[in-house]
Amino acid sequence: MNAEKIPDIIIGRLPVYLRALQRMADSGLKTTSSQELGEHVGISAAQIRKDISQFGEFGKQGTGYSIAYLLDKLKAILKVDRIWDVALVGAGDMGHALVRYQGFVNRGFHICMIFDNDKEKVGRKIDSFTIEDTEKMAERLKSAGIKVAMLTVPAQAAQSVADKLVQAGVKAILNYAPISLNVPNNVKVQYIDPSIHLQRMTYYL
Amino acid sequence: MNAEKIPDIIIGRLPVYLRALQRMADSGLKTTSSQELGEHVGISAAQIRKDISQFGEFGKQGTGYSIAYLLDKLKAILKVDRIWDVALVGAGDMGHALVRYQGFVNRGFHICMIFDNDKEKVGRKIDSFTIEDTEKMAERLKSAGIKVAMLTVPAQAAQSVADKLVQAGVKAILNYAPISLNVPNNVKVQYIDPSIHLQRMTYYL
Repeated sequence: MNAEKIPDIIIGRLPVYLRALQRMADSGLKTTSSQELGEHVGISAAQIRKDISQFGEFGKQGTGYSIAYLLDKLKAILKVDRIWDVALVGAGDMGHALVRYQGFVNRGFHICMIFDNDKEKVGRKIDSFTIEDTEKMAERLKSAGIKVAMLTVPAQAAQSVADKLVQAGVKAILNYAPISLNVPNNVKVQYIDPSIHLQRMTYYL
Repeated sequence: MNAEKIPDIIIGRLPVYLRALQRMADSGLKTTSSQELGEHVGISAAQIRKDISQFGEFGKQGTGYSIAYLLDKLKAILKVDRIWDVALVGAGDMGHALVRYQGFVNRGFHICMIFDNDKEKVGRKIDSFTIEDTEKMAERLKSAGIKVAMLTVPAQAAQSVADKLVQAGVKAILNYAPISLNVPNNVKVQYIDPSIHLQRMTYYL
């Protein structure tokens, strides 16, 4: 296994397999096949076998995959066999929704601090969190060793906030602002922009 | 131009170009080059030229692209030279955030109805919208001719709601529920699951 050589498109499918396997485990299943997993995720069995085999031999001919074993392996590969502390920047409607989102904690993530530059919002609470001033963000991120952040600020503020995150040592940014970010090569960015996803579908209508 | 033959990965990049071009236009720019556009979106100039040339000759050697012209063409290709009425199913925190999201209306989309199966929520308002009962959803979607929906319901409810949407004539679903959906081939689904995006990045950390 050479992590450098595995195409990013394969890495992108692993979390989808992980999510489906976790649902199977939650429903009491013990083993599965690439065929069955494929039906759950809409990807061919051959593709799944090929993707997974990049990382080792996790299944057995005829008996398929142990779900618990494959879950453990995928979590280790994706480094979510631990909990990552995540900083959230932008305490608007989307920020509120993410703070309350139930889908992070059992998938490797925990929002631990939330920042906003609006002095009206600083000091207020979202559930158990107190919104902090972005002026203190760099210091807070560094001292807590935060590597992962979510950005839910307006488009015009996103690049300057991203620059501050990078300077503070953040290596992975999930960007909800509708703008492409410029970051150094050693920083990863993923984008969530519902209009982009919708436009990709209306093409076909 | 043969729409059937253009790879989906190219279609997926067009909304990113559109978003960047719109920002250029908003800031007063009149023309751009594939080089400049590439710097904004983090995609090579050669790739951009190749992608755009799939649909015709929109730029001129030496003078580049007219931003207004390319915007018009991309909007027409992606069919967002019109406004799509969108139904939202699931009036939780994420549903609320999406109703209030400012990034739909000038990008081709308008949330026009919102449904929930929780009788406590039905009849309540989110801004100017009244939450409607999912029991009446099929009828409402059909009579309004809705083709696009966003799904912000819990994972365990998502497949059955998606089935109802498809039966009511919806052809494009943006799914925020953390589960893969089974839909007919003529229905498009796009997924937004922040944990999937985060896991794709932690692999590299």
